[in-house]
Amino acid sequence: MNHVLENIITRRSVRSFTDQAIKQEDLDQIITAAIYAPSGMNRQSWHFTVLRNKEKIQALYELMGKHLGNQNYNFYNAQVMIIVSNDRENRNSVADCACAMQNIFLMAHELGIGSVWINQLKDLQDIAEIRTLLDSFGVPADHQVYAMAALGYAEVYPEARPRKKGSYHFVD
Amino acid sequence: MNHVLENIITRRSVRSFTDQAIKQEDLDQIITAAIYAPSGMNRQSWHFTVLRNKEKIQALYELMGKHLGNQNYNFYNAQVMIIVSNDRENRNSVADCACAMQNIFLMAHELGIGSVWINQLKDLQDIAEIRTLLDSFGVPADHQVYAMAALGYAEVYPEARPRKKGSYHFVD
Repeated sequence: MNHVLENIITRRSVRSFTDQAIKQEDLDQIITAAIYAPSGMNRQSWHFTVLRNKEKIQALYELMGKHLGNQNYNFYNAQVMIIVSNDRENRNSVADCACAMQNIFLMAHELGIGSVWINQLKDLQDIAEIRTLLDSFGVPADHQVYAMAALGYAEVYPEARPRKKGSYHFVD
Repeated sequence: MNHVLENIITRRSVRSFTDQAIKQEDLDQIITAAIYAPSGMNRQSWHFTVLRNKEKIQALYELMGKHLGNQNYNFYNAQVMIIVSNDRENRNSVADCACAMQNIFLMAHELGIGSVWINQLKDLQDIAEIRTLLDSFGVPADHQVYAMAALGYAEVYPEARPRKKGSYHFVD
């Protein structure tokens, strides 16, 4: 099978990471992949805030948990957390960030690193004490957070879930 | 350089396609890549309507053009057009479709096929005569169109545009 396709179809969201650290050279390749995503009008208005400090990741986790209450919520022992934000005024922000997230996932998988999309910060970012923490991380003040990518080595790398039937058709 | 990374960083939106047809086996790989994108809660609620009939692509182009007036607008002689739609009620629809779009772009590029994101149908889809045409293509009636991927062989495959500086930082 073609290697790019194999990498795409064997990628799977990972929700349990070991304590193994991610090497900086791998992180550099993952970020390079992210910034080479396409963006509407080639704006590249996104920003990637890469948390590689476990205490700061934990601080964010605890503060978000305080506001999420009983919601099912986990960082899965992520070793690195990438906060993906974009210009609030750009109407392509969600799509641009999602393309970059997919590049992050694919590059991580290629390097043997697991990843998963974390969604909740999108809804919590404008709570004052959370915004203050994001400011301290250097997330741009005029940006909205659209997603986070949690990264780490998988405890067990799962197989991709079966695909639903009937999700495409050809028109002649 | 790692091949997955090389494929990511050499991909570039292509805006001028030749008349060369895309082989079905290549289209099958591109669609396989699309459906293996991640989706929120693993819903896979997307649908990919793959237009491989030039007259139908042209009919869509002309009908959209009628409503776009003088807006800068082009299908770039696309040989295949993939309409990417998703459940209107799914709040992850945009992001899920964008991840699938990125897989389409990356797989096409790996196969030597050019691609570009076409955005305008998103804003026009609820005009009655456009919805009627989409119905005739089999786009699910309860779906919203989020994007189209235009595919074809590049007249000249351009190099990726330079990346903006300062779009990421590491937090220790």
